[in-house]
Amino acid sequence: MYKVTFKFENSEDVTAFAAEGENLLEVAKKANVAIDAPCNGNAACGKCKVKLVSGSLDSEKTRHITAEEYEQGWRLSCISLITSDVEVLVPDIASAYRSRMKVADLSSTEEVRIFEKAKSDIAEAGIEFKNDLEVIDVKMEAPSLDDTMPDNERLIWAVKAQCGVERVKITFAALKKLSDALRQSSFHLKCVVRRTEKKLEILDVMPKGAVPQVGGLAVDIGTTTVSALLVDMLTGAIIAKASSGNGQIRFGADVINRIIEQQKVGGRKKLQRAIVEETLNPLVDSLCRTSGFAHENIFRLCVAGNTTMNHLLFAVDADPVRMEPYIPTFYEVEGIYANDLAIDINPHARVIVAPNIGSYVGGDITAGTLASAIWNKEEMSLFIDLGTNGELVFGNSEFMMSCACSAGPAFEGGDISCGMRATDGAIEACTIDKETMQPTFKVVGDEGQKPAGICGSGIIDIISELFRCGIISPKGKFIREGERIRHDQYGMGSFVLAFKEDAASVKDIELTEVDIDNFIRAKGAIFSAIRVMLQSLDFDVTMIDHVYVAGGIGSGINMENAVSIGMFPDIEREKFTYIGNSSLAGAYAMLCSSEAEAKVADVAHNMTYLELSSEPTYMDEFVASCFLPHTDATLFPSLAMK
Amino acid sequence: MYKVTFKFENSEDVTAFAAEGENLLEVAKKANVAIDAPCNGNAACGKCKVKLVSGSLDSEKTRHITAEEYEQGWRLSCISLITSDVEVLVPDIASAYRSRMKVADLSSTEEVRIFEKAKSDIAEAGIEFKNDLEVIDVKMEAPSLDDTMPDNERLIWAVKAQCGVERVKITFAALKKLSDALRQSSFHLKCVVRRTEKKLEILDVMPKGAVPQVGGLAVDIGTTTVSALLVDMLTGAIIAKASSGNGQIRFGADVINRIIEQQKVGGRKKLQRAIVEETLNPLVDSLCRTSGFAHENIFRLCVAGNTTMNHLLFAVDADPVRMEPYIPTFYEVEGIYANDLAIDINPHARVIVAPNIGSYVGGDITAGTLASAIWNKEEMSLFIDLGTNGELVFGNSEFMMSCACSAGPAFEGGDISCGMRATDGAIEACTIDKETMQPTFKVVGDEGQKPAGICGSGIIDIISELFRCGIISPKGKFIREGERIRHDQYGMGSFVLAFKEDAASVKDIELTEVDIDNFIRAKGAIFSAIRVMLQSLDFDVTMIDHVYVAGGIGSGINMENAVSIGMFPDIEREKFTYIGNSSLAGAYAMLCSSEAEAKVADVAHNMTYLELSSEPTYMDEFVASCFLPHTDATLFPSLAMK
Repeated sequence: MYKVTFKFENSEDVTAFAAEGENLLEVAKKANVAIDAPCNGNAACGKCKVKLVSGSLDSEKTRHITAEEYEQGWRLSCISLITSDVEVLVPDIASAYRSRMKVADLSSTEEVRIFEKAKSDIAEAGIEFKNDLEVIDVKMEAPSLDDTMPDNERLIWAVKAQCGVERVKITFAALKKLSDALRQSSFHLKCVVRRTEKKLEILDVMPKGAVPQVGGLAVDIGTTTVSALLVDMLTGAIIAKASSGNGQIRFGADVINRIIEQQKVGGRKKLQRAIVEETLNPLVDSLCRTSGFAHENIFRLCVAGNTTMNHLLFAVDADPVRMEPYIPTFYEVEGIYANDLAIDINPHARVIVAPNIGSYVGGDITAGTLASAIWNKEEMSLFIDLGTNGELVFGNSEFMMSCACSAGPAFEGGDISCGMRATDGAIEACTIDKETMQPTFKVVGDEGQKPAGICGSGIIDIISELFRCGIISPKGKFIREGERIRHDQYGMGSFVLAFKEDAASVKDIELTEVDIDNFIRAKGAIFSAIRVMLQSLDFDVTMIDHVYVAGGIGSGINMENAVSIGMFPDIEREKFTYIGNSSLAGAYAMLCSSEAEAKVADVAHNMTYLELSSEPTYMDEFVASCFLPHTDATLFPSLAMK
Repeated sequence: MYKVTFKFENSEDVTAFAAEGENLLEVAKKANVAIDAPCNGNAACGKCKVKLVSGSLDSEKTRHITAEEYEQGWRLSCISLITSDVEVLVPDIASAYRSRMKVADLSSTEEVRIFEKAKSDIAEAGIEFKNDLEVIDVKMEAPSLDDTMPDNERLIWAVKAQCGVERVKITFAALKKLSDALRQSSFHLKCVVRRTEKKLEILDVMPKGAVPQVGGLAVDIGTTTVSALLVDMLTGAIIAKASSGNGQIRFGADVINRIIEQQKVGGRKKLQRAIVEETLNPLVDSLCRTSGFAHENIFRLCVAGNTTMNHLLFAVDADPVRMEPYIPTFYEVEGIYANDLAIDINPHARVIVAPNIGSYVGGDITAGTLASAIWNKEEMSLFIDLGTNGELVFGNSEFMMSCACSAGPAFEGGDISCGMRATDGAIEACTIDKETMQPTFKVVGDEGQKPAGICGSGIIDIISELFRCGIISPKGKFIREGERIRHDQYGMGSFVLAFKEDAASVKDIELTEVDIDNFIRAKGAIFSAIRVMLQSLDFDVTMIDHVYVAGGIGSGINMENAVSIGMFPDIEREKFTYIGNSSLAGAYAMLCSSEAEAKVADVAHNMTYLELSSEPTYMDEFVASCFLPHTDATLFPSLAMK
């Protein structure tokens, strides 16, 4: 056995043991060390680089590592075999996905504004923001030697008499608190209850003088990022927001690699633990700490995630999601409670899952569609969610159609050598001087924050600017020379945004031809999907009244640039609105409003699904879209005019 | 900190650490070392003796330890304070209550006969042995690209169509297995379901060719002993039986001491862990191992226990049980599932709790009453459960009255210096030669088993024989001399049943005057309770048509002797029947039969409860009964005739 020590710039070492010849990335996974491995160890993405500090590794050279880098000790962990005791440095850029908790300061109302906006849009569409949780006051006679009714019957009788409900139940958690609460308050209680027409369930009991906390949790489980809102269920107010990376990321950046991973022995439990114990429970913890809420006072959970994320959360086999005929275990599901999932909130909290409508159009889209309110408009709207994949919904109050395209994770910084999410250090906007080729950029974070990588909106800007400045060709190849333009030993070009001296990174921040190619394919997938879906309905882009762009691409997205690279159709720019994390906004609405919950089910039932891969024109459209902006320039008349 | 090493004769050392002056018994409790302490550390019972092997203890002498014993190193752990590193031997007689698992060999049909008898008695009374669990066969069309209904909807549709039930649910555990099961069997399943009139719940799914296991668990949670039956829910057959000591015993032998313990910080969780993790889960484990059943294939649990045991199982505050006006949190409870209690069976298994009817007449009695079938008879029956307390039910199909008396744990060997449960090594029957005073006894266990202690039925025989032979007075004092009769330095007499050379014990097995006194008070409590309850109804003992004796006192109970010491009324001996563990028999019936479950609720609702402590005559009756056989000899005419 050899000793393997993982070193980090900002945290403590992790030690593991491995046999001769074991794969370094696998050892890291077992030791819960998050090495970024979007391709799940296929030596395809080149992101799992680590730096050898001492000892030796049996590790080939690859195009992902320059001769100089190799000299410095950089190795791809997925093709490195252990041959001695070894110490490796896991760089911060590689561990960008490590669960970094971020709790929003809600005084910066921008964080909350977007959710309030969605809420008011939904309310305007006629959805009442009211749920079935409430607090009631119940007074009972104290027992005596002549009146020996036990506590639970006493409470149930009193509630039946007071509320006129036939069936009253007490949850097990409330039962445990009942005796103390009654005797602390002379048999006068406050109760948190869930009241439906015929039934009333007592979820919590407390002495009459206590101030009840009735919390709810809305969660967007993205493939890359998980975000959560803690909500006051009585007022609907957002109390705190937190987000972190999805702990499953070390098992692959995309859903396919995770589905493969969950099929291995013990895989489903491993993936479930990664999302529940390593991601959701820490998020709940931090939300509760920030807000002074007790875990057990969170009485409801609403989850919006794609079909695969939902299956992995439940530890239900996700393999059928990717295998023809693409039949998952469930689209909708009921009767799940927090203790089924070991989520650390009230064990009897009902889990609402935003319904999936297909293997590749999940609850994030149905919830997001709710938030966009396009289901209530006469005008024709296009809703685009740029998550780790791209999903589209087109329609109005009369009909809706959805489709999904495998755009890949490029919009969230995946498959991009210096890509990262739109968190601190991300270049989110950029302009380039046509003469000097000097870039000017905006970095997410506090003033003076050095760049650490590039997020989706930044990549759009950079590609748009490189193209505008004639630095790259319509195919994305470098056609000018300069100090910022490099070619490696394989001839691959790249553009340096920031040299490492000026960056929060161990290496220069650059965008390579491979990155540009990946991104062009991603934007091509989106654009061609829009075209094919509209064609299938006999529509064309001019008939689109409004476009709602959602997702983790970053609020800095520049619509002009997005059109200029051919990602979005060339229609009036004021028709585009960025609506942020619509999946979370939808989950928030479903959590707070029983009508919203019902509406999403309704939306899901009435939305048709277009399987793009069965559309004969899709592949041609896709190939034609893998150009800047497009092989058919007539599709972008406004660009031609410039 | 000092190191405390607990040594055992038959198992490995346990090491703990303690501060100067810490109490040895408390240290043992924290270290999960079971030292027998029926009085919970009040230096009252003298049972927590340990032998000092090395080091020193600050420990007083007491009447419970002779000078010779003290010399040998024996100390009462409850009054011993740690003053150095120390090694102590915890003797086997003291750890008699340590959880000893016993799985019945069901080929010895005697073990099962008593439950089958109860079942046939209940069935004869018109209760159908049928429950709502069944296995159904469901065939579905396989999905295709044109038929993309997800697995859960597909199954629910098929079941609705086939069974004509409106509402069909799939449990979370079954949902997790659904995808695999469908694809292993071309969409043809066997399902374990719970079917009620309007609802059907799918509890398990498997490929059509699989052989379903549908298990249920009936458990009697006694204060001292816990017994369980694993049952085939489809046939009602008993598959295996197991029993062990109640892991809570180290927190006190009786309910009062445990209620006090559960009130301490963390106490409720500690008591719950002791019963669930240390007692029930190991029992489930051993039942499953014996029978080849999978834990998750146990789909229902029925628990019968006294009111305090039920509260401690649920970690619900039990203090109101012992405090006027004696109002527990619940008598009946619904909607509890195995995962609420962390019992290691199917997480969605419904937990049926035999209803309590008062703080001191619990589910063990309502279940036991069901098993006795007295509720279906015209004749007047008396049902006596000799558990750690004594409870009585008197009545017939027209009315029933119950009461409880604090007989103490003597019937199960508690409060008796060499007392033990009716397990291997227990003297269960005894005769004494009037001339030689030589005892002859029967020991529980294999041929050649040496005696290790005395169980309830043995104590009855010994006291009866000592009295018959004129060795003890009607007050229980020794009035003859002999080699087996001893007097200690305090003048307390005792009778040696077996010298340590002939015993499986580190000391002689004897019955002391204190033991006899304890037992006389226990039997006096029972007899006076019978008298007072009958008087309150204007009945007398001659009107009793039949007596059903239940409990852990041992199947060897000699009714003649029990009458001769004045424990039971002097009526025809053939009117007495020992019916064994009626609580477990009742739980077994409730588990297998929905009608039996309803009948117990009915019995509980219709049984009146007599609070003996409020009866003015009870104390006088009790005092008069603390004699052999009684101060009023006319109550025992058949004895006078001898």
